[in-house]
Amino acid sequence: MATAAPNTMEIDCINTIRTLAMDAVQAANSGHPGTPMALAPVMYTIWDRHLSHNPVNPSFANRDRFVLSCGHASTLLYGALHLTGYDVSLNDIKSFRQLNAKCAGHPEYRHCPGVETTTGPLGQGLGNSVGMAVAERFLAAHFNKPGFDLVSHRVIALCGDGDIMEGVGMEAASLAGHLKLSNLTWVYDANKITIDGGTDLCFSEDVAGRFEASGWHVVTATDANDVDHLDSCMQEAFGHELPTLVIVPSRIGYGSPNKENTSGAHGAPLGEEEIRLTKEALGCDPSQSFHVPSEVKDAMTQKALEQGAATENAWNEMFERYRAEWPAEAGQWDDIQAGRLPEGFDAELPTYAADAGSIASRKASGVALQSAAAAVPWMVGGSADLAGSNQTLLKGEDAQSAETPGGRNVFFGIREHVMASIANGMALSGLRPFVSTFLVFSDYCRSVHRLSAMMGLPVIYVYTHDSIGVGEDGPTHQPIEHVASLRSIPGLTVIRPADANETTEAWRSALARTDGPTALILSRQGLPTMDPDAVASATGVHRGAYVLCETKGGDPQIILMGTGSEVSLCMEAAEKLERDGRRVRVVSMPSWEMFETQDAAYRESVLPASCRCRVAIEAGATFGWERYVGLDGRVIGRDDFGASAPATQLFQEFGITADAILNAVSEIE
Amino acid sequence: MATAAPNTMEIDCINTIRTLAMDAVQAANSGHPGTPMALAPVMYTIWDRHLSHNPVNPSFANRDRFVLSCGHASTLLYGALHLTGYDVSLNDIKSFRQLNAKCAGHPEYRHCPGVETTTGPLGQGLGNSVGMAVAERFLAAHFNKPGFDLVSHRVIALCGDGDIMEGVGMEAASLAGHLKLSNLTWVYDANKITIDGGTDLCFSEDVAGRFEASGWHVVTATDANDVDHLDSCMQEAFGHELPTLVIVPSRIGYGSPNKENTSGAHGAPLGEEEIRLTKEALGCDPSQSFHVPSEVKDAMTQKALEQGAATENAWNEMFERYRAEWPAEAGQWDDIQAGRLPEGFDAELPTYAADAGSIASRKASGVALQSAAAAVPWMVGGSADLAGSNQTLLKGEDAQSAETPGGRNVFFGIREHVMASIANGMALSGLRPFVSTFLVFSDYCRSVHRLSAMMGLPVIYVYTHDSIGVGEDGPTHQPIEHVASLRSIPGLTVIRPADANETTEAWRSALARTDGPTALILSRQGLPTMDPDAVASATGVHRGAYVLCETKGGDPQIILMGTGSEVSLCMEAAEKLERDGRRVRVVSMPSWEMFETQDAAYRESVLPASCRCRVAIEAGATFGWERYVGLDGRVIGRDDFGASAPATQLFQEFGITADAILNAVSEIE
Repeated sequence: MATAAPNTMEIDCINTIRTLAMDAVQAANSGHPGTPMALAPVMYTIWDRHLSHNPVNPSFANRDRFVLSCGHASTLLYGALHLTGYDVSLNDIKSFRQLNAKCAGHPEYRHCPGVETTTGPLGQGLGNSVGMAVAERFLAAHFNKPGFDLVSHRVIALCGDGDIMEGVGMEAASLAGHLKLSNLTWVYDANKITIDGGTDLCFSEDVAGRFEASGWHVVTATDANDVDHLDSCMQEAFGHELPTLVIVPSRIGYGSPNKENTSGAHGAPLGEEEIRLTKEALGCDPSQSFHVPSEVKDAMTQKALEQGAATENAWNEMFERYRAEWPAEAGQWDDIQAGRLPEGFDAELPTYAADAGSIASRKASGVALQSAAAAVPWMVGGSADLAGSNQTLLKGEDAQSAETPGGRNVFFGIREHVMASIANGMALSGLRPFVSTFLVFSDYCRSVHRLSAMMGLPVIYVYTHDSIGVGEDGPTHQPIEHVASLRSIPGLTVIRPADANETTEAWRSALARTDGPTALILSRQGLPTMDPDAVASATGVHRGAYVLCETKGGDPQIILMGTGSEVSLCMEAAEKLERDGRRVRVVSMPSWEMFETQDAAYRESVLPASCRCRVAIEAGATFGWERYVGLDGRVIGRDDFGASAPATQLFQEFGITADAILNAVSEIE
Repeated sequence: MATAAPNTMEIDCINTIRTLAMDAVQAANSGHPGTPMALAPVMYTIWDRHLSHNPVNPSFANRDRFVLSCGHASTLLYGALHLTGYDVSLNDIKSFRQLNAKCAGHPEYRHCPGVETTTGPLGQGLGNSVGMAVAERFLAAHFNKPGFDLVSHRVIALCGDGDIMEGVGMEAASLAGHLKLSNLTWVYDANKITIDGGTDLCFSEDVAGRFEASGWHVVTATDANDVDHLDSCMQEAFGHELPTLVIVPSRIGYGSPNKENTSGAHGAPLGEEEIRLTKEALGCDPSQSFHVPSEVKDAMTQKALEQGAATENAWNEMFERYRAEWPAEAGQWDDIQAGRLPEGFDAELPTYAADAGSIASRKASGVALQSAAAAVPWMVGGSADLAGSNQTLLKGEDAQSAETPGGRNVFFGIREHVMASIANGMALSGLRPFVSTFLVFSDYCRSVHRLSAMMGLPVIYVYTHDSIGVGEDGPTHQPIEHVASLRSIPGLTVIRPADANETTEAWRSALARTDGPTALILSRQGLPTMDPDAVASATGVHRGAYVLCETKGGDPQIILMGTGSEVSLCMEAAEKLERDGRRVRVVSMPSWEMFETQDAAYRESVLPASCRCRVAIEAGATFGWERYVGLDGRVIGRDDFGASAPATQLFQEFGITADAILNAVSEIE
């Protein structure tokens, strides 16, 4: 390892990664060749010399996690996966960016073996890597026992200028430094080139200085092509007690006579002629495309497979001994790996009698969370500095920190964006994360919801202070469009419960969901607990919408529907209308997404097509409710911003009242 | 100024700011007293000794801009406004947080005189301040002439730990440092307390180090209560050639015997008893509430009014001489101050004939932007490192930088969030900003749209790559829910034009709008230019939706509607249906918001209630389209994520085709 003489085999391996990237992008006629060409030596160093993994089992629990935060450089990862023996064939690489190909434009989790997280939106991979590093430390604290280092892996993320500039990446760096995540290494591709040109157009930070000020160790490489040098940089990183940034001064499009070190190498195919010139310059055969020299494949694959098998076999053998000695812990470990919750996880969730009175759904949520967390020891999460308001501080549990690595309360700081991104990372490593802030600040982590959904991660977003019910804090703190806009995200289940019992069921649903995220939308203000004897069971939540209260006789003439705090207004209006001899049904609709997955017969049973006198009410944007009220119905809501005043006044002022429902009914008729 | 002896008048002024804050929060029974109590000396120092402004004219063009980024400390600002003679009475402060009060929970622009920007969502004020500082420098470069320092003001932002931790604040710092904004000063309230407890829970940055690494000058105050010391810190800041951070080690809730330096002082009233104790400790009369000693009011108000009048009078006198010497520039200046565009600003916007062929709407947008920018010299903007793709680089214009302060092309770097926040700041200072990125990354600046809208700022958001038409980059880069979720934001006008001519009209509309933001949603791929002789005029865009192509005979039986790239699919389907003898109307609906502002008669004329066979198509979430198709119609779109493949294949694969429209029609019938 300490030789300075060029190692031909290494150069061949590195150039194979480069040429595969060039050829794949050229064949697809789109993609990003420059970064893979530049970082092939880094990738080779990490994957051939350091990464502990088993290519035949990408799920090996104690594998090192490699995150390609600069996801546009996907061919770099695909090349490494192919060469180390993952189920990524040369044909897969040849079909880069084609429909249903494993090798998508950006790496997609669950889509291509060995891809640890879906990346592309910049900075997200860094946030994910922090979550993975927290998870590693947490799992080690909980599961490792004397003689049993069950959990002892590293998290390595590769990132570019975009990741480093994005606020979410900066938040990630700040929190990782604070948490002293010694198991975390970021390799920063400092190529000084962005799409618009040189980084000097917009970026002149002393990045090393910034990271050091944030509690990181920094290693600055001097040569992006010297494998032994890069190797020693990585070793220094892995050995340090702080998270470490390795800065690599690469040259984008390395080897390309006309495009190296230009933004022209970033996001477009090099072109056939330039590829030919580049291959010549690199000493590769320009007449061949997608060429993998057999000795390269043999060497890299064989080494990775042998080491992988040995590593996993040793670990498996250790785990069997562990199971004998620590059966309860081993059972929990199995659950985590399988994405299961413990038997009876929801047995102790609270229920509320009619006399429970007025309870804010955020409070009922807090009670449910405490119960769930007691049953599921790997629920870990917290708030962006609103734990008390969000009711998400786990009682009797430590803060997550270097001193208490098993701490389940993560204090994310006032960093909503990376909070959510970290939750994705924790979920990817098997934890059941929950994160929380005011609903209005879901905007700050907006981009993460869709990644949770795209990856099918059961992250629970706890969003409190869900409407103008926020009151005096005013329009900047009052969500209006937020429930609608969360509903528009594919794969995200949004639940806005109407009272304490619905809140319990909302939590039960969120916990039971293993294939995607859930957003719980919770009130600041107290909500009356509906009498369980007088209305339908709150288990109706699991069908998304249900007949909460049926008219006393015959088919309904009128359907009133709503969610959350407005359901009680429907009940109030229905009572008045029934007293006037009208037949009124009240439908509680806590989750549109869950309702949409019910069969047509159930949906028709709740909202019969024949009944067109429909009024929906929700203290927020009316947007989207026409799906359920149609052209003939009415929606009561608020399509402008809120105001600073006591909440009860605002509901009156903005006409979100039972009287407004009565008026709407009379308008329709 | 250099005396070390305590100045009783100063102390009285400072304590008045403190007690007003305590009393206002107590009366409202909600709010944030701790920071105003801590920062009253800082506020006094800035407002009494440094701020150049004229309280009787909050719009005085060359005033210093003061931004309270920690907007929850609003009573600090209200106190200063009251004491310096703004139209903010003691009664206004007494009605803090009540409906329609000037003194809202968080400061609201246009709502309370002297409030420069709406703050509350943390970090936004910092972004705004960068925009204001860029605007100051830009306007100085364009308007100042020898002997005429028309523009020479400072931008000062007060911020707390939240602002410093938020990614958007970090992005703002990074870009401000790069841009060397010497006119910018941030005062950082380093009180080491957040809502959840001490900052040591989540934050251990060397903030000074981080800012120095980002190109800032840093001044660390040693005493948060010594006005002379604070004064010299501010002087050092104002005199430096770099943006400067002044770190003030304050104690939250200063003066409160039981709550000082605790998170208990942050976000709740102190309580009557604690207020009494605090007033005693501060040497104030505990028997009085909302007490403003007459000598305090006299001293601060008189000084501010006198200086303000003198400053503005001198400036006005200078401006009259300027007008005589530089009449054209003075005219432009008037336009900027009035929020007007130059006469004929849209005269040169392009139009396209039928033979223009296929043009991506982002390309047509680029042409329109160049034309508009030539006519409006104070259009300034750029992209988050996608200027080429977004087509938003102004030709022949400089980059905004310290060396070229008049540069109109802002290279925001890969920092979408602060890009938008900066645009708000630029708009607040009179510029007409445009910002751009891929539509999918509108998520990263999500929270800013609503602030643009709430403040009524004519920011133009240029969002390209608007659908699965993105193609090979795959689901992370393909917007699905984004158009729907932007539509759900109150006050934001969303326009998705169908071809090059509609794109021109979309730009005309966005430019003409002076009271709020517009998001232009533009295609990556080419769109056929509709034959102006065969379809209705694209000026229909200004009504939001219009009958693009009417059935050849009688009333329509079928209405097909869509936006953007899907309008041509409607045309194709309509042609087939008409050939089959059906009467079909095609409605282009580029902007729901503009359509909703039309009168009922026009809306009925476009979408007659009697016609219920309606099909809508849009390459994105179907969410919300039921507003126009009702319970009986159909919506064709994509309610799941996209995929990585050539775009034309994706439209087929996901069934966003003319055939799908035909099928939907037959399903309805």
